[in-house]
Amino acid sequence: MSVATDQATPAVTRDLAAFAIGLRPGDLPAEVSREAPRALLNILGCMLGGCDEPVVLATLAAAQRWSGAPRASVIGHAARVDVLHAALVNAVSSAVLVFDDTHWGTVLHPSGPVTAALLAAAEEKPVSGLDFGVALLVGIEVACRAAVMLATPPAACSNGFSMTGLVGGIGAAAAVGRLLGLDQEEMEAALGTAAAQGAGFRQTHSSMAGYLVPAQGARSGLMSAMLAKDGFTCSPHSLEGPRGFGHVFAIRPNFEAALAGLGTRFEVLSNSYKPYPCGVVIHPIIDACLEIAAAASGARIDAVDIEINPLAIELTNQRHPADEREAQVSLYHWAAAALLRGHAGIAESQMVVIGDPSVAALRDRIKAQARADMSRQAAVVRVRYVDGSRREANVQVCRGSLEHPMSDNDLAGKFVELAGRRLDAAAASSLLDQCLALERQRDVAAFLQPFFNLAARRHH
Amino acid sequence: MSVATDQATPAVTRDLAAFAIGLRPGDLPAEVSREAPRALLNILGCMLGGCDEPVVLATLAAAQRWSGAPRASVIGHAARVDVLHAALVNAVSSAVLVFDDTHWGTVLHPSGPVTAALLAAAEEKPVSGLDFGVALLVGIEVACRAAVMLATPPAACSNGFSMTGLVGGIGAAAAVGRLLGLDQEEMEAALGTAAAQGAGFRQTHSSMAGYLVPAQGARSGLMSAMLAKDGFTCSPHSLEGPRGFGHVFAIRPNFEAALAGLGTRFEVLSNSYKPYPCGVVIHPIIDACLEIAAAASGARIDAVDIEINPLAIELTNQRHPADEREAQVSLYHWAAAALLRGHAGIAESQMVVIGDPSVAALRDRIKAQARADMSRQAAVVRVRYVDGSRREANVQVCRGSLEHPMSDNDLAGKFVELAGRRLDAAAASSLLDQCLALERQRDVAAFLQPFFNLAARRHH
Repeated sequence: MSVATDQATPAVTRDLAAFAIGLRPGDLPAEVSREAPRALLNILGCMLGGCDEPVVLATLAAAQRWSGAPRASVIGHAARVDVLHAALVNAVSSAVLVFDDTHWGTVLHPSGPVTAALLAAAEEKPVSGLDFGVALLVGIEVACRAAVMLATPPAACSNGFSMTGLVGGIGAAAAVGRLLGLDQEEMEAALGTAAAQGAGFRQTHSSMAGYLVPAQGARSGLMSAMLAKDGFTCSPHSLEGPRGFGHVFAIRPNFEAALAGLGTRFEVLSNSYKPYPCGVVIHPIIDACLEIAAAASGARIDAVDIEINPLAIELTNQRHPADEREAQVSLYHWAAAALLRGHAGIAESQMVVIGDPSVAALRDRIKAQARADMSRQAAVVRVRYVDGSRREANVQVCRGSLEHPMSDNDLAGKFVELAGRRLDAAAASSLLDQCLALERQRDVAAFLQPFFNLAARRHH
Repeated sequence: MSVATDQATPAVTRDLAAFAIGLRPGDLPAEVSREAPRALLNILGCMLGGCDEPVVLATLAAAQRWSGAPRASVIGHAARVDVLHAALVNAVSSAVLVFDDTHWGTVLHPSGPVTAALLAAAEEKPVSGLDFGVALLVGIEVACRAAVMLATPPAACSNGFSMTGLVGGIGAAAAVGRLLGLDQEEMEAALGTAAAQGAGFRQTHSSMAGYLVPAQGARSGLMSAMLAKDGFTCSPHSLEGPRGFGHVFAIRPNFEAALAGLGTRFEVLSNSYKPYPCGVVIHPIIDACLEIAAAASGARIDAVDIEINPLAIELTNQRHPADEREAQVSLYHWAAAALLRGHAGIAESQMVVIGDPSVAALRDRIKAQARADMSRQAAVVRVRYVDGSRREANVQVCRGSLEHPMSDNDLAGKFVELAGRRLDAAAASSLLDQCLALERQRDVAAFLQPFFNLAARRHH
């Protein structure tokens, strides 16, 4: 697999670094700028909603054993830890409910690692809401483009890799590096150092270690930016070089796609916020099941047939989830829960529903068939009732897809549900308003701190 | 690249974990036990010799900013840091002179990450020399077998990956996990969590970030073992599962080879200690050049022709090294330096020789030709002198290869040269003796500490 250096190889490292440094807020189209508060809101909600899950508590306990000077917030907890561990723990919180966001073309979840790293960095010195928002968009953009390099045909990358683990740190390094004022060479080093720590595969999904994969991205991206600021060097061709990130992780890495329209076309517009807390490939099934549930008479379900894109079955073919993590990748669980409960939110992700005998029994009466001719946004669900009646739902474009994105109201509702796990309704609503006013905030850490403290007080 | 789960897939994670836990000192053949003090000696020498290099100082400075409670030694420095950062910094020291060791079949350098993690763990509670030595051998064995899984045909893995970055943490987790007394399930989690952090590619070679690649292995392996002890779970099929370590990093991962003879055949016997501080593919060239230099009349060299295995040219085709890191992967530099100076040690790795105009001029008069029919242990060097005379050396089996390993005396000489950069001769000699008596040491940290302190005092 030796690859000759080619003078025609696009300078991906150089160009992404220049973009990360040079982008000016005024260069951003309005529909892109608008995604900064939306992305922040979405992922802060996930962090607040997830911060009390057992894997977060376990990660925090470990972090406290190893932590340096307690300079950064752990969202939802009174404890403070050093910036690297804060990024780690908060990124676990962002991922644990699998309710974050998805760049559809690459199955990347960019906001968690980028935001967790940025929040920690913003506690080192004051950062305005405008700067924070642009850095967040830069981080998402760079992460997405690194993923595009690996996954856009003719590039091919094992779908066993966790794309978020591979590129999340690169995005985090870009975002933090911008805040730190890195110069071109330093930014190239930051991106390369982060790329050299890109890691993780899907076999760890459904285990506690699975949440460390995106979290290590947050931690290593932040570290890489700080090391670059301190003068740590790295190859200026880390991403596109013959023995670099692109060529080791992908066959025929698509350097052209990684750079196409850089600065004028923004991948954040291809990143969608999740409407349901489970694997994104399950979402069209949930839409169809909710549609059927809303119309159903209450008759007992005899059997369910699902037709879905093959990737959904490949990634979420978990018929008997034993815990919440396994349920996150169980299309059967979400179909059954949505059909029986008419809702697919945090409640349906919990053990009380996963272990409900009627949900479990229905999971066993579901058949899923792979349909290679269907898009990943589509699903057909057919339900036969014991009384002989039948219902069918045919979803072409699911909620949360690019053609049917979450509205501001959808996002607000999601935020309130999630933040409401740790904040009272008034505080959640106030935080929502403040996040939406991100561009006018003078100090991001200062405006967030009181809410993080409230969340911690509610807990402890 | 979807891969179906196969009932016949060997349980690599389970079996390596059982080996790491269950191996008893009495199960080790004498020629294997003997490698514990030799491996320790070799890598401690590298750490002592390398601990003052700029990249170590930079890593240490960063580590001190982030470090938790200072519980572990930084070799050669008065500073202490938390165990994770100690493993990180000491692993950078072990790697910086590229003088460590090589598992020939996989181009893995196993001892650095494993030993750096073990040394830190041994400061948490007393560990006997016997236990330390067996843990070290276990870590090397597990790292090598994970590498064999990726690199032994029919398995194929991009040679752009840093094998040490990919599997070093797995070995470190096995070694530390054994010391921590992990049970079977915990050890499987430790190996899987470490595998999920396996990262790094060769494009970073010759940059400061390049040394972080094996160092992150040390850090993440240690962390993974500690997290597993705390109850962190991971897939029991992390290494062999359809979306696990083997399948994402290799085409046709060789699970059978990873387990063949486990417990009776030991990969440490296929791991060799480096005789020269540079890429191992250069070593046969150095042997040939030293042979010619020893016999030469002193006439001025006109031209040099080298025939060598293609991998040497692919990995070390650096004709104009600008610094010590680039010289480490410059076959031209080492050929020129060995021919002109009749020696190829630390001195030849330094800027004063790299920048020597006569060495630089000779580098330009060397031609290297790839010979696919030659083994990686072989080289032919032909020198033409200005006076018209010629010399040729034909090395079939280079020093440091499996057929021509470093003797105890060779290792002692190497240790004294390296440790002598930080210890006086009497201390270096005493440390040598104590390492050779590893099996009789009651507390590894306690016997090493005085020497680390001496090394630190000499420096500060």
